[in-house]
Amino acid sequence: MLITLEGIEGSGKSTQMKRIAAHLKSQGRRCVLTREPGDTAIGKKIRAILLDPENGALTSLSELFLYAADRAQHLGERVIPSLAAGDIVVSDRFFDATTAYQGYARGLDLGVIEKIHDMVLKGLRPDLTLLLDLPPERGLRRALSAIEAGDRTVSESRFEQEALVFHEKVRQGYLALAAGEPDRFVVIDATASVDEVTDEILATIDARLTRK
Amino acid sequence: MLITLEGIEGSGKSTQMKRIAAHLKSQGRRCVLTREPGDTAIGKKIRAILLDPENGALTSLSELFLYAADRAQHLGERVIPSLAAGDIVVSDRFFDATTAYQGYARGLDLGVIEKIHDMVLKGLRPDLTLLLDLPPERGLRRALSAIEAGDRTVSESRFEQEALVFHEKVRQGYLALAAGEPDRFVVIDATASVDEVTDEILATIDARLTRK
Repeated sequence: MLITLEGIEGSGKSTQMKRIAAHLKSQGRRCVLTREPGDTAIGKKIRAILLDPENGALTSLSELFLYAADRAQHLGERVIPSLAAGDIVVSDRFFDATTAYQGYARGLDLGVIEKIHDMVLKGLRPDLTLLLDLPPERGLRRALSAIEAGDRTVSESRFEQEALVFHEKVRQGYLALAAGEPDRFVVIDATASVDEVTDEILATIDARLTRK
Repeated sequence: MLITLEGIEGSGKSTQMKRIAAHLKSQGRRCVLTREPGDTAIGKKIRAILLDPENGALTSLSELFLYAADRAQHLGERVIPSLAAGDIVVSDRFFDATTAYQGYARGLDLGVIEKIHDMVLKGLRPDLTLLLDLPPERGLRRALSAIEAGDRTVSESRFEQEALVFHEKVRQGYLALAAGEPDRFVVIDATASVDEVTDEILATIDARLTRK
């Protein structure tokens, strides 16, 4: 089973990832936490290029291909082998993030993005995608607090520096994707308290595992 | 005018690039030498990932997208602006290298590669592609000598370590591309002496510049 978490900066994905893992392990299930970009050794090098504020000259198209390279490596080296071993794989971001950020927000052609998804995913789709939805002004405030508290480095804050209007486009992109695939997506209200969000996520996952 | 040089390892591209530049400058023409992968600051970081022998886990598909990312950046930051400024751009490798290496030699789907070329190039094609053709055993001997002489670092030798049979597939791929586009490609016999190869290249370029 492949579960993905999506959402804008500061939507609380990292915290919820850890709680999902703890919950699945308490049920005796084998679970692998992963993320995009940067889960593999090669992906970490690609992530460093993508998130370095010094790389402001990076073109939108080059950025799109770097995400595709990271994803192809992530799938081949980590996701597919883990799924084949029977593990539940939970990924912090996956291909929907590319559609939302590069497509809906940066304005790259959605048809081109879809073609690249086909090449990389070869038909694979998450069984469940949890969209942690909240207004960008709430998310960015959280993300900035995390940076100030030293949980993230300034070099990882390139996206946080981008304007609210950009993140609103990302959010609307995610919501459009969710509306288009209501069986795969579950939209979670991430303005609720962290514990409430956890409760809703775990109930959703448990229901899917029972159904499966 | 966009001129590209293609050929297997040790076919003498670097030497000929310098001579082409000197020749064009002696004619009072503005000329930009460039290469793939790694001409831009971002491309250098991508090149480091591609050529690091430690990255043996790199999947063929991830490699393909890293080359596409480098190429998109190279085009946007360097090739297109230089052509727009009226310079003659001479590139050591371009998109044909991807078709030959990743397609013909590594066996990636040529249709997928062609789709990525369309996304990256958006119709741009070199005016002239010089294919320096020679048997791989001759080329690899030259490339290994260059490494031993310290002209290249061992970390750049990942490709040289690959088998002769691989390079023979690359060569045959290049020859198939040249046969398919005889107006764009000129095949140069790179077993001839360096000076003879230079003479043939410069005569070809001069003829094209006169025709243009």
